[in-house]
Amino acid sequence: MHKYPIDINCDMGESIGNLIIGQDEKLMPFITSCNIACGYHGGDPYHMQKTIELALKHNVRMGAHPSYPDVDGFGRREMSVEKEELKALLVSQIDGLNQMVNRFGGELRYVKPHGALYNKASVNSKEAKIIIDAIQTVSPQLALMGLAGSIMQKAAKEKDIEFIPEAFCDRKYKIDGTLMSRAKQGAVLSNVNEVYTQVNSIVFDKTVTINSGESISINADSICIHGDNPMALEFLGAIRAMFKNHQNGD
Amino acid sequence: MHKYPIDINCDMGESIGNLIIGQDEKLMPFITSCNIACGYHGGDPYHMQKTIELALKHNVRMGAHPSYPDVDGFGRREMSVEKEELKALLVSQIDGLNQMVNRFGGELRYVKPHGALYNKASVNSKEAKIIIDAIQTVSPQLALMGLAGSIMQKAAKEKDIEFIPEAFCDRKYKIDGTLMSRAKQGAVLSNVNEVYTQVNSIVFDKTVTINSGESISINADSICIHGDNPMALEFLGAIRAMFKNHQNGD
Amino acid sequence: MHKYPIDINCDMGESIGNLIIGQDEKLMPFITSCNIACGYHGGDPYHMQKTIELALKHNVRMGAHPSYPDVDGFGRREMSVEKEELKALLVSQIDGLNQMVNRFGGELRYVKPHGALYNKASVNSKEAKIIIDAIQTVSPQLALMGLAGSIMQKAAKEKDIEFIPEAFCDRKYKIDGTLMSRAKQGAVLSNVNEVYTQVNSIVFDKTVTINSGESISINADSICIHGDNPMALEFLGAIRAMFKNHQNGD
Amino acid sequence: MHKYPIDINCDMGESIGNLIIGQDEKLMPFITSCNIACGYHGGDPYHMQKTIELALKHNVRMGAHPSYPDVDGFGRREMSVEKEELKALLVSQIDGLNQMVNRFGGELRYVKPHGALYNKASVNSKEAKIIIDAIQTVSPQLALMGLAGSIMQKAAKEKDIEFIPEAFCDRKYKIDGTLMSRAKQGAVLSNVNEVYTQVNSIVFDKTVTINSGESISINADSICIHGDNPMALEFLGAIRAMFKNHQNGD
Repeated sequence: MHKYPIDINCDMGESIGNLIIGQDEKLMPFITSCNIACGYHGGDPYHMQKTIELALKHNVRMGAHPSYPDVDGFGRREMSVEKEELKALLVSQIDGLNQMVNRFGGELRYVKPHGALYNKASVNSKEAKIIIDAIQTVSPQLALMGLAGSIMQKAAKEKDIEFIPEAFCDRKYKIDGTLMSRAKQGAVLSNVNEVYTQVNSIVFDKTVTINSGESISINADSICIHGDNPMALEFLGAIRAMFKNHQNGD
Repeated sequence: MHKYPIDINCDMGESIGNLIIGQDEKLMPFITSCNIACGYHGGDPYHMQKTIELALKHNVRMGAHPSYPDVDGFGRREMSVEKEELKALLVSQIDGLNQMVNRFGGELRYVKPHGALYNKASVNSKEAKIIIDAIQTVSPQLALMGLAGSIMQKAAKEKDIEFIPEAFCDRKYKIDGTLMSRAKQGAVLSNVNEVYTQVNSIVFDKTVTINSGESISINADSICIHGDNPMALEFLGAIRAMFKNHQNGD
Repeated sequence: MHKYPIDINCDMGESIGNLIIGQDEKLMPFITSCNIACGYHGGDPYHMQKTIELALKHNVRMGAHPSYPDVDGFGRREMSVEKEELKALLVSQIDGLNQMVNRFGGELRYVKPHGALYNKASVNSKEAKIIIDAIQTVSPQLALMGLAGSIMQKAAKEKDIEFIPEAFCDRKYKIDGTLMSRAKQGAVLSNVNEVYTQVNSIVFDKTVTINSGESISINADSICIHGDNPMALEFLGAIRAMFKNHQNGD
Repeated sequence: MHKYPIDINCDMGESIGNLIIGQDEKLMPFITSCNIACGYHGGDPYHMQKTIELALKHNVRMGAHPSYPDVDGFGRREMSVEKEELKALLVSQIDGLNQMVNRFGGELRYVKPHGALYNKASVNSKEAKIIIDAIQTVSPQLALMGLAGSIMQKAAKEKDIEFIPEAFCDRKYKIDGTLMSRAKQGAVLSNVNEVYTQVNSIVFDKTVTINSGESISINADSICIHGDNPMALEFLGAIRAMFKNHQNGD
């Protein structure tokens, strides 16, 4: 099913009403997994449906991309939500999308939490476990996608749920394998060559070079591209070219 | 299943996060149908779940109460939403609640549109048909609840979907069977005796008295109580007492 | 200006569009200060204006009641908001209300933060200072209202801004002068006699009795009544009766 | 003050929290007027402030860009809002921005309604008058910007408020001077040459060519560029080049 030596995932379906976010139609043909918004940070049922149709057309694997209840802050603000309430919110988002995908004849395959919830669950087992509990409430078939080497990955192992570890093509890593904060200078790669080099080493060497020049090991099954990055299409082009070269014995 | 000679329905589950709306726990024991908010005018997954549990406990029939996408305006503002978008919004709301009810072992039985959408579909066949189309997309088992004698009722007949005509215990009617605008003096009954009298004539005479003193005929299978009316509990008490008296041969 | 031996404040103006919250018209005649919502947890310009008119009519002191940007959660969820962004949000809320009050010929007198922001600033000097900074950016005439004995009160003293310490008529206190969590059994008083007793001891003895039976000292210049408490009118009645008795030498 | 033979205006400041909308920093240096969001379709106080600072830096004229209360629908849905409520919403948005601009030492110069409200007021004198009434409530110095030849322009003349008629560089016109619906094929220009030609004829011939090939007359004092158009920067480049050529006697 993969067109590339590694899965490439991208957030999709985040438009709400007449506010169009991202460039879903342009990116979908070149990715292999899409994380579909569930209405709580972005996405409305109409655009979620359009995204499902687009994913089916391009044979792209579908995942749910649930969030804290934070449309106004695009799910990027850490919020205090009680355990039971958070579980209800997640079950509802995942299940709603699951039904929608089924109605279109597709199959939802995984869940990747969005924004502040992703970051929280990467370092905090309480949130990681609530997410896994919510996923298993909806379906035992669903995998969890998250940061390679994170607390989420550990929690997934404990709870016996399939985990898809991902790496970022355009973010600098720290020596412990976590991401440099976006607020730090140089944390986000904006140069196609740098992205090319980082993806190359993640995919073929299972390492990534950090700012000090050292290499750390990373075991990822998917590469995340940020669709709201204006360079996303260029990055994808470079990555595809690399994969093609490699295939040709380069 | 009904405890009364007529069904009594009430909007429920409209609380969002820490904003508590209505008095669901107090009213639920005394009604026979509840219209559960679906998150687009009120309601969040946590409170929707609590409402389902409460309805199951009191053996109350459950319906979905979908709305225009208008949390800020509580679904009471008429909005222009394209046909396809409106259908997607409705399918998502109804299906989401349907799944949630199923997960708790219950059964969703009907759909009653909320607020501005209810009003629009009562007089406009385009909206009525979109609603019916959305309901039938989710399940052929679901009935539609709406204003007795309205365009919605006609559309339901045409589309061969079960219709539950309802009447209002606390609203004055016009000679054509539609409701007086809330903005008009005397449009909303606030006196227990008036409510008692109106329910009595709706249930036992199938008529309602309008402002001119004339009686018009009305064929309702359910009576709607507004849970956000501070008098709701008193109204319910009067109605129950009446039903009890009637049963006793009064 | 006060009709009572102590100021009584209540949250007001929290209705949005067609969603009516609280019972402003019934309570306004019996309070002496009102905390007016600023649109970020509740309140829209129309209802804010109506509240200002009502306050002017009843000669009630007006304060701004700004919040985290959390309409969906009614401002009751702790959120991570950057310092500069939080300041901008607060200045905008306070200034917007200030202008509105001025346009109606009134005068805004104080600021009381709402919900999660109030709780945060009661124990955390960073948030307390951002609030004070925002207030002083709008006007040096404005006071800050907050929990008696809190970090907010200390920060106000340091920053040389007038502070109005308040106590709660319907909440149990802990030995350190902070409030028992609403989640704990018995944290919220729902009995008129208990409320009467607590207000009596706050106003006339400057103490409050905690669960262990001990008295702690409290120095409050205002008593807060929660307008969304269905018992609010009864509580107000009891408090007014007490004040009247006291005045009569009882 | 204008750098060009005609004013060029663009919507700005529409980002909310962590959701970044538009490319304000890239476009601001090349426009002469900016329509700043007021928080009701987009914009939060933090981003509104950033936009004001950017406009001041580039000496760009500032206008308020108020909307229906529709953050979720980005102000692009027609909504039914009562006259008094709509006026309160507009006064609050305009006044809030006005104060903010003043605080930064700038001056708000005009108001341009956003989205569905703009469209409604272009053809409906009731809404046009409410907008003008709101503007005059805030300040008699403020102008109104709107569609050249529209009902808004007529209402502005009647009410004796300065009007800035604008034309669109990237929209096809109908024979009556109104815009072709976005839904129609060919309604939106996406080709730089077409945009160049349309701006040239608007500015230098005071005409625009419609689909039939006929020319209609148009009297505009400002040209609107849509900042959310991915081609916006290219369009601006072509327009600036044209102005430069013209200045050089081309």
